[in-house]
Amino acid sequence: MSSSRMHLAAFVTAGPGRPGGWRYPGSVPGWLSAGYYQNIARTLEDARFDLAFFADILSVPDRFGGSPDTQLRNGALGSMRLDPLHVLSSMGAVTSHLGLAATVSTTYAQPFTVARSFATLDHLTEGRAAWNVVTSFQESEARNFNRDEQFPREQRYERADEFLEVAGKLWDSWEDDALVLDTEQPLFADPDRVHPIRHKGDWFTVQGPLNVPRPPQGYPVVIQAGASAKGKDFAARWSDVIFCSHASLESAQDFYKEIKERAAAHGRDPEAVKILPSIAPVVGATTAIAQQTFEELFDLVPPLGGLSTLAYHLDVDLSTFPLDERLPDVEVPGVEGHYQEVREMTEREGLTLRELGKRYGGRVEGGFIGTATEVADGLEEWFGRGACDGFMVQAPYQPGGFEDFTRHVVPELQKRGLFRKDYEGSTLRENLGLPRVQSGEWANRVRRAAEAAR
Amino acid sequence: MSSSRMHLAAFVTAGPGRPGGWRYPGSVPGWLSAGYYQNIARTLEDARFDLAFFADILSVPDRFGGSPDTQLRNGALGSMRLDPLHVLSSMGAVTSHLGLAATVSTTYAQPFTVARSFATLDHLTEGRAAWNVVTSFQESEARNFNRDEQFPREQRYERADEFLEVAGKLWDSWEDDALVLDTEQPLFADPDRVHPIRHKGDWFTVQGPLNVPRPPQGYPVVIQAGASAKGKDFAARWSDVIFCSHASLESAQDFYKEIKERAAAHGRDPEAVKILPSIAPVVGATTAIAQQTFEELFDLVPPLGGLSTLAYHLDVDLSTFPLDERLPDVEVPGVEGHYQEVREMTEREGLTLRELGKRYGGRVEGGFIGTATEVADGLEEWFGRGACDGFMVQAPYQPGGFEDFTRHVVPELQKRGLFRKDYEGSTLRENLGLPRVQSGEWANRVRRAAEAAR
Repeated sequence: MSSSRMHLAAFVTAGPGRPGGWRYPGSVPGWLSAGYYQNIARTLEDARFDLAFFADILSVPDRFGGSPDTQLRNGALGSMRLDPLHVLSSMGAVTSHLGLAATVSTTYAQPFTVARSFATLDHLTEGRAAWNVVTSFQESEARNFNRDEQFPREQRYERADEFLEVAGKLWDSWEDDALVLDTEQPLFADPDRVHPIRHKGDWFTVQGPLNVPRPPQGYPVVIQAGASAKGKDFAARWSDVIFCSHASLESAQDFYKEIKERAAAHGRDPEAVKILPSIAPVVGATTAIAQQTFEELFDLVPPLGGLSTLAYHLDVDLSTFPLDERLPDVEVPGVEGHYQEVREMTEREGLTLRELGKRYGGRVEGGFIGTATEVADGLEEWFGRGACDGFMVQAPYQPGGFEDFTRHVVPELQKRGLFRKDYEGSTLRENLGLPRVQSGEWANRVRRAAEAAR
Repeated sequence: MSSSRMHLAAFVTAGPGRPGGWRYPGSVPGWLSAGYYQNIARTLEDARFDLAFFADILSVPDRFGGSPDTQLRNGALGSMRLDPLHVLSSMGAVTSHLGLAATVSTTYAQPFTVARSFATLDHLTEGRAAWNVVTSFQESEARNFNRDEQFPREQRYERADEFLEVAGKLWDSWEDDALVLDTEQPLFADPDRVHPIRHKGDWFTVQGPLNVPRPPQGYPVVIQAGASAKGKDFAARWSDVIFCSHASLESAQDFYKEIKERAAAHGRDPEAVKILPSIAPVVGATTAIAQQTFEELFDLVPPLGGLSTLAYHLDVDLSTFPLDERLPDVEVPGVEGHYQEVREMTEREGLTLRELGKRYGGRVEGGFIGTATEVADGLEEWFGRGACDGFMVQAPYQPGGFEDFTRHVVPELQKRGLFRKDYEGSTLRENLGLPRVQSGEWANRVRRAAEAAR
């Protein structure tokens, strides 16, 4: 841990949420209405969460059997997703401190559009915008964007590097004091402090300037989940916040150490990179109630729902294997970490593929099931033993899971002095303990990287 | 007019507004904050406006002298623009009936992204989304999106036709009742009612389905400003609402008649196409106060601000002509209607180019300057004599101009039975008197057009 207090982010889904969670009693099916997300936003802000985070995907995944049907039928993770940026704007309208993070792909968007979008969100929310950078890895996403197949991973990351370089240049294209607003002269904006960027690269040619003044935070907070070697390096170079998934405290500690070292190797302050493992705590008034809740939630996980999501996470068509046998060894082009996780589950618990689907869909990252005290004990241990700077909290069912956590676990963490009782600042960077980004910061990082490569 | 009541839209700017308007006393420079737009939204909804509309541009225009400096210095129309979609989401959060229209270009975006974005906005606002379709025509926009120069107009419109065709297919890819939400079976969405679109065209290849259920309105309301022959035909084929700019009642009548005929030629009900000329009324307690207000506003228009905006509207570098002589005859690749307007102004009033810049920037479309009664008389005449179905109301200064209009002119229109006192429905289509769009509507239009072309 790099500070005495942890940071808490909420992993919200602009759709039915975790596998089977939509079937849990009281899981209001309000995913299409603004009020549903605004209520979650109020709950999180009342509890002083750092930020609400939305993952995203640009298709209904069809990696299971070449068809989206299994995802749709089971209300699996990719079955339905609203555009997270609009959801965030709605949430921003009813909150004043909560950070707002949306996933946007660098593979299927343009830097001018994305830089402008986050600059706008950062202005409208007075410095609370965050961008989760992904490169997308589903063939079904490529096929929604004029391609028969996606770019290879190496190319996607090259594009992402250049995308972020261009975004930084666009945010810097207005100096901080460029907007003068002198009605007398008149001088609205000082042209000497607004600069074309004239970027010409392998992927993008962008003249600039942006048509939005520099964002309140300088740049929005940048988030990334990097599991592959390439991903970890990308995250260490660019990210303010990194989220990850670990089956054990030990693997979280290893990851934490490695990322902080990589960040330092990029000339960055390791304290300025916050690492938040994903957890899906199930909280109850007693241990037995929490366990019972977990079991009932587990019962609701449709095996093929979990399996079709695993298929897209691994990027392997799992429909081609017998459901009542074990998953054989396979080549995994997708998320390597998830494959290790399910290999271990299969071996340890002797699961068939069908059982694995349910087990994967119903898994509780971090394994935190218990009373508020027990869950807080677990979080305190991870935090205290150098496994993280805080947590990315998933709700086992939405929105109730967030209420369980904020009403019971957060007060316990506050009592122990492990979590804030009041926001430290007004912008997300201030609350994360990160400095406002000075103009030219990313250009400098790109320059250092180029020098190091020589 | 196609109904006894007119429709009112507000032309809001996510930036400094009309030329010089930002210099008018009381024009709070709040263009970067959500509260500023939310207050405008409340004002418009209290007055029962049909919708708030945001124009857009994807660059700071540099058509005047090859540099954005003149736009920036003068706070001209393109100097600064927030991303309108986020502004709308913020406004949607504090209103329940006001329609919300954003401009998105078909030339620099992808149909999957845009269809999803408007479907999301339509869900979050329960049926209040509208899309103003533009093809963009500034070289400076092309240069922010990897191109040295833009596509020729013909190609931009071909792309736009296919873009809308794909968007319609994506909105239709979920049948209206596809979301079942049966927690028992379980059956989240019925795969038999969600369909890949498998579009393969000249510009786009999109597999689908969309990952958002069909929007509440079927399709969002589609808006277009078509001035060229190509544009008028495009608007008559696709648009629910058309906005336009006319110097005289007669030209508005001609345009109205022509568009309704073109819509009928496309097999559409002419009543289902609403035509709203742009006006910028200046309202005062007495005629003399209104005139004085107009003159003071006019004084604040920076000549080069107006001229640099005219340069981008005409797509002609006006910096190459002497400022103290008349504008000579020029080739105009941009908006033909604006050129005719400024030719007439130049001839009639004997203006130098510098004077024309001020005159163009400070012009009051429709010429409505006076008391609420006088302005209402003018609007009633246009509406009653078949020039329009209502108006696109600009504020001569923002946000005060909207308050002047809604507090004084709207009650006068209501008294005369020309404008609603209460919303007729809950969706924008209902308030515009347009039916919800049935699945397949656009596919049918495309088929009819193809048959007609044979």
